[in-house]
Amino acid sequence: MQNHLRLLTPGPTAIPDRVRLAMAMPMIHHRKPEFKAVMEESRAYLKQLFGTQQEVLPLASSGTGAMTAAVTNLFARGEKILAAQAGKFGERWINIAKTQGLEVVELAKPWGQAVYAAEIEEMLRKDPDIKGVCIQICETSTGVMHPICEIAKVTQKYGVLLVADGISSVGISPAPMDEWGIDALLTGSQKGLMVPAGLSLIALSEKAWKKAETVEPSCFYFNLKAERKNVLKNQTNFSSPVSLIIGLREALSMIFENGGLESLYQKHYALAQMTRAGIKAMGLEPFAKTDYAWGLTSVAMPEGVSGSELVSLAAKKTGVVIAAGQDPMKDAMIRLAHMGHVDFGDMLAGLYAVASSLPHKPAAFSDAYLSIAMQAYENAGAYPKNAL
Amino acid sequence: MQNHLRLLTPGPTAIPDRVRLAMAMPMIHHRKPEFKAVMEESRAYLKQLFGTQQEVLPLASSGTGAMTAAVTNLFARGEKILAAQAGKFGERWINIAKTQGLEVVELAKPWGQAVYAAEIEEMLRKDPDIKGVCIQICETSTGVMHPICEIAKVTQKYGVLLVADGISSVGISPAPMDEWGIDALLTGSQKGLMVPAGLSLIALSEKAWKKAETVEPSCFYFNLKAERKNVLKNQTNFSSPVSLIIGLREALSMIFENGGLESLYQKHYALAQMTRAGIKAMGLEPFAKTDYAWGLTSVAMPEGVSGSELVSLAAKKTGVVIAAGQDPMKDAMIRLAHMGHVDFGDMLAGLYAVASSLPHKPAAFSDAYLSIAMQAYENAGAYPKNAL
Repeated sequence: MQNHLRLLTPGPTAIPDRVRLAMAMPMIHHRKPEFKAVMEESRAYLKQLFGTQQEVLPLASSGTGAMTAAVTNLFARGEKILAAQAGKFGERWINIAKTQGLEVVELAKPWGQAVYAAEIEEMLRKDPDIKGVCIQICETSTGVMHPICEIAKVTQKYGVLLVADGISSVGISPAPMDEWGIDALLTGSQKGLMVPAGLSLIALSEKAWKKAETVEPSCFYFNLKAERKNVLKNQTNFSSPVSLIIGLREALSMIFENGGLESLYQKHYALAQMTRAGIKAMGLEPFAKTDYAWGLTSVAMPEGVSGSELVSLAAKKTGVVIAAGQDPMKDAMIRLAHMGHVDFGDMLAGLYAVASSLPHKPAAFSDAYLSIAMQAYENAGAYPKNAL
Repeated sequence: MQNHLRLLTPGPTAIPDRVRLAMAMPMIHHRKPEFKAVMEESRAYLKQLFGTQQEVLPLASSGTGAMTAAVTNLFARGEKILAAQAGKFGERWINIAKTQGLEVVELAKPWGQAVYAAEIEEMLRKDPDIKGVCIQICETSTGVMHPICEIAKVTQKYGVLLVADGISSVGISPAPMDEWGIDALLTGSQKGLMVPAGLSLIALSEKAWKKAETVEPSCFYFNLKAERKNVLKNQTNFSSPVSLIIGLREALSMIFENGGLESLYQKHYALAQMTRAGIKAMGLEPFAKTDYAWGLTSVAMPEGVSGSELVSLAAKKTGVVIAAGQDPMKDAMIRLAHMGHVDFGDMLAGLYAVASSLPHKPAAFSDAYLSIAMQAYENAGAYPKNAL
């Protein structure tokens, strides 16, 4: 039917025309004034985006590279950290930390549930050797948001570092790091930021920089102190991923010229309400029962429906690309993302793609699901500043 | 004067229109069939480019990331390696290896000189504990090529691993890894490969894979065994830098549709002869006295001439961007690159940019320098297959 290709996956997300065209300009050199001007403008935008007075450092890596950089720059071999284990990306913190020779205390919750501040507090109280908490803001494998603003109060109370993976939340839901007290915030380029993958970003709090001063980074490629020195000169330590940073500057310009972060968060909050309402009106249930992410809606598959088959059929029939579950949950859920350069029209197409690819309509399916979704969008109300 | 911007720096290099437009296409998902087809095509091209039956692994990192990956996957903490220290990038091997906890034996030569096979053999003979040799093929900071095909004979004789940084040589001068016996060959995207920075490539020999099986990689982000498993499925371990890999596929298609590697090496060899002849006809001298790189010509600055000032003036007057020296050699040389998407016309412009930015003409300056350069280009003859 020659429909549009609509990428409603939780990364990569669609790249706006303006960003793609900016990236297609002829190459410039990363040690010359023209590039330094791009970096300078990006740095100012990034501080607003991260809600910090600290420098936000760009790294030529996927988001996992920034996670690795956080762990290898903030904790020394043998130190103990607490990691939330409630999905695939929680497991990634644990694997990175173990590879780095850290001792890891795991706070395990079933996939689909959030980790709460009180649970973390109990573990910190019991074990004063824990030096840091590593957690996702949004656990992309389940569609759950952990309540980071509440968790930050606890880590501040106990004087431990809070390391937050914002890969599926930065530019989607608020997490102002200085105000909330996040010690390391990181993200990747290919989700809320509307840029191809290959660029990650990380900022450290003053407290985290003090800790980093005491740690010899164990991986030569990820040296945040060296990156900071370079960023202050509008450069990066090694060859800069120039096209991706030019794309980032353009995407950030779009955000800040069009209502800024308030309007960005409001859009994603409304799209999340809309998508969840549409799914429920189809007689389906979110996989996450509470603490819904703002950037994606996970949908539990009814008995006998395969998530990965539904996803294939939807792409073929409608051009809408959505994601199945990950690892053990491959067929048990689908994930409909509403992050980055999407709007209500894309989500209407996404909801139609799901409904029309179901092998049979659930008992509670309402033919009005699209209108119900739009009503939820209109009635979403102002987004909660604490993202709870 | 609204001249063209001409990037004659030893990375980044100009990106062909065809590559830039391919990269500007809408985003596709890295776990879906459309991307897997891009990877499959790239893999076949990359095996030809590297001259290997092994898989060539793409990493989301700058070239230094691939250097880090080589060291952290091939050598265990405490093992001893030999590194050639004859420029800035030789130093980088040493720094990576020391960060990784390796013992490093340095083979130091002054900047501007090559490291020869006999020198390496002598050190391997004296110290049977050395497990590997880490070296550049082209030392970009000096414009020298180390004779890798000869060095490989020595490392094979002594049964140690040869790890070759091909960042400024892959796609520029031949180094068929299986034929010559290179155990790890790596490169970055932003030089001979005509793609923006942010993507690196690495391949290991069968012998190197056997060694890698015995080493627990110390940095979670760089796990070559996990990357190989994914590449065999036309994927990468973490989020793929999709736009850069699409650019790579397009650049490789251009190479192989237009005469392939023979014609690519012939072009760079002829451009190297041309540029050196032009520089000499201006009464200037190459900084490297022998063992000239095929991808860049380093030019020693006469007494009283500052390399960085010449470079600034050339950019302003002619639009041609060349590089000054690096670190201690910042003002002592300039580096005129002829790698990637450049041809004789660009190099004529580059030679004019240098000549017209000299504060005064050297005594031996010939007004016929451009014609002399073109004669050298025409008379270059067939490139030596061993790159010596």
